[in-house]
Amino acid sequence: MSFKDVLEGAKPANYEEKALLCSWDEFHKVITSRRSVRLYDTTAVPEDVIRNAINAGLIAPTSSNLQQTEFYWVRSGEKKAQLIQACLNQPAAKTAQELVVVIARTNTWRRNAADVLAQLRTSGAPKSALKYYEKIVPLAYNNGPLGLFGLVKRLVFRLKGISAPTPREPKSFADIRVWAHKSAALAAENFMLAISAQDFDTCPMEGHDSARVKKILGLGCGAEVNMVIAVGRRAPGGVYGPRMRLPKERFAFEV
Amino acid sequence: MSFKDVLEGAKPANYEEKALLCSWDEFHKVITSRRSVRLYDTTAVPEDVIRNAINAGLIAPTSSNLQQTEFYWVRSGEKKAQLIQACLNQPAAKTAQELVVVIARTNTWRRNAADVLAQLRTSGAPKSALKYYEKIVPLAYNNGPLGLFGLVKRLVFRLKGISAPTPREPKSFADIRVWAHKSAALAAENFMLAISAQDFDTCPMEGHDSARVKKILGLGCGAEVNMVIAVGRRAPGGVYGPRMRLPKERFAFEV
Repeated sequence: MSFKDVLEGAKPANYEEKALLCSWDEFHKVITSRRSVRLYDTTAVPEDVIRNAINAGLIAPTSSNLQQTEFYWVRSGEKKAQLIQACLNQPAAKTAQELVVVIARTNTWRRNAADVLAQLRTSGAPKSALKYYEKIVPLAYNNGPLGLFGLVKRLVFRLKGISAPTPREPKSFADIRVWAHKSAALAAENFMLAISAQDFDTCPMEGHDSARVKKILGLGCGAEVNMVIAVGRRAPGGVYGPRMRLPKERFAFEV
Repeated sequence: MSFKDVLEGAKPANYEEKALLCSWDEFHKVITSRRSVRLYDTTAVPEDVIRNAINAGLIAPTSSNLQQTEFYWVRSGEKKAQLIQACLNQPAAKTAQELVVVIARTNTWRRNAADVLAQLRTSGAPKSALKYYEKIVPLAYNNGPLGLFGLVKRLVFRLKGISAPTPREPKSFADIRVWAHKSAALAAENFMLAISAQDFDTCPMEGHDSARVKKILGLGCGAEVNMVIAVGRRAPGGVYGPRMRLPKERFAFEV
């Protein structure tokens, strides 16, 4: 059974979930209010604000539902001081009330796939969904020792792709990294918007020493720092300038 | 002037932007209502719904404000038919009313940095911000022919990193890919939530033939398919089952 068969054959279960009636205006306020805030005042961030935001992150879409994202809320004073250093002492880190690290996992998909499969089995999921986790996931995300199986996949995809549409990724560890960071960023955006929705502010920081950040968290291979997020309430001057975007015609196309 | 100096020295301009008072309950509805919807009914999606969502995507955070994300709304019947094929005929693509491709750009940072710098110069931005785009960006994102400069950076970062916190990425084309996809995913999440906030549904699709998707859009090197997003209104059975997440303790840590 190919990936294509699974996708085409997946019959919806007898399950109904209605959309909730939402407010565009309220949502628009949240995305507009979210700015990268680089100076925070001394207002404490209630624990629930961070917890709600982590929960929001964890319900973002995750590729193949393999749940490759982790949130580390750094609360210990010592670790926080180290993390500020690892974030190069930038003002957003130094003045943040809270710091949360988003980690992208490249090495948990196999474990998570097995656990998702176990849950699906008990929930009466259709056969095609089970097959996806039994057969497709182990092939799709595995690149083998030294990436050799990935090379085989690359060749097979390329040959198959001559005559028919064929998924091409992930065919290397580099692709797995992209894949994991992509889902982590979806979760990170939910997190940041959730903080804005609760009237606090964030700054996503990529200017950090990822090796030191991982060391502070006790993480090794298979964990990559997606971003460090500063959280607090904006101080006067905390937003450095009006939002600046280049002309939209450069980024939005109708074809 | 090092990256560290820039970050530490960036003095806030005389600019004030207040946060907007937001509603957590309304935001929570949006993230809860967003599910991956795999079957759509025939309700047409108003043009403004897509345009609002693309605008929402374009104000997501973007790394170093280098605006590496593009949205392609595929409207031509012929291209749409090709794109459905390239998405392996999966039901979400076949029944979608609209299809939007999110592209991550690895090759526009230099052009965009120059244009952001030009805008900053006319807006009286502080010197440190100008220096960031003049000096740091060209070093940070450039990996040179065959990635050789990236190798030099990797060595320098590692040596410097022994004694002091040092940013480590991007030091290879693989890192640039991660970097571009990360910002693209932040934008994609804004897009999907914006669709939910307007009472329509989405499905992010990674099961596609990226080579064919790029060909349909007329894109070559330097453009990578982040995801294809199906848009429409959920049909009965369009959400295949209750949201399934593994135990939170596996993904949320306080350290």
